[in-house]
Amino acid sequence: MTQSNSSMQLTRAADYGIRVMIQLATLPTGTRTLLSDLSQATDAPVSFLSKILQALARAKLIASQRGKTGGFELLAKGRAASMYDVIEAIDGPICLNTCLVSGKSCERSGWCPAHPVWARAQRAMLDILKQASIEELAGLVKRPEDPQPSELKVLLVVH
Amino acid sequence: MTQSNSSMQLTRAADYGIRVMIQLATLPTGTRTLLSDLSQATDAPVSFLSKILQALARAKLIASQRGKTGGFELLAKGRAASMYDVIEAIDGPICLNTCLVSGKSCERSGWCPAHPVWARAQRAMLDILKQASIEELAGLVKRPEDPQPSELKVLLVVH
Repeated sequence: MTQSNSSMQLTRAADYGIRVMIQLATLPTGTRTLLSDLSQATDAPVSFLSKILQALARAKLIASQRGKTGGFELLAKGRAASMYDVIEAIDGPICLNTCLVSGKSCERSGWCPAHPVWARAQRAMLDILKQASIEELAGLVKRPEDPQPSELKVLLVVH
Repeated sequence: MTQSNSSMQLTRAADYGIRVMIQLATLPTGTRTLLSDLSQATDAPVSFLSKILQALARAKLIASQRGKTGGFELLAKGRAASMYDVIEAIDGPICLNTCLVSGKSCERSGWCPAHPVWARAQRAMLDILKQASIEELAGLVKRPEDPQPSELKVLLVVH
């Protein structure tokens, strides 16, 4: 019954979506970035990332411009977005259990004692994802530094 | 990119697992219940529920007895279990994102600003699922009542 991917896991698409949104938010407003550069920054394969960027563009979080000066740029709505907004743009609403899917009622929900626990667990998780602002996270990015020269070799040249 | 099942959703197997554990915990210690009765109580298909019960038995949360007086019964470990314990017995550990999978490090985790948010979101959710005791939930079960007679008809018989 154990699965290779554990239960309740974020999709790879949404994970890459958050990576690419944070990457775009590290850049000054109006900066356009090429798909290939975004792929490199997020470790996401180009073709997969391209579909993710389309979903983010449909949600008006980013815009794509064609042509010589083209590329992907963050829109104001994207800069103001939370991690939850990005996940929702890519995967749709998060529902930890089917009994929480809006508009689809579980006939057990009136008396099932697990239902309110699911509602509480989901609220606790979503509160944290909704408070996590993409722009604030971008301000925290500390890239791994370039390899330091292991030693500063000083050559004393005797005249 | 939107999927029919939303991201981060509990498996049906784990959902049925929680239902069946709560059902067993409503009964006095030592009570054995037939698969067919458990299927009816949980709305889970018999063949699927059978596999779920095997996983719960492997985790020593329940025991199955063969024969005329056989059936499934809750073990002490099962009565003391939390909703999280049941999910883990069926699906393995919950990891909201691959970067949280124990023993599998993400090379971005040292600097990626989303990583600590995922860790916090997971902790908040798991705290609630770990505090939800199967036995306590069973004590809260209020089954839908049998249909009430809509009206008490009193026949006045005149002698």
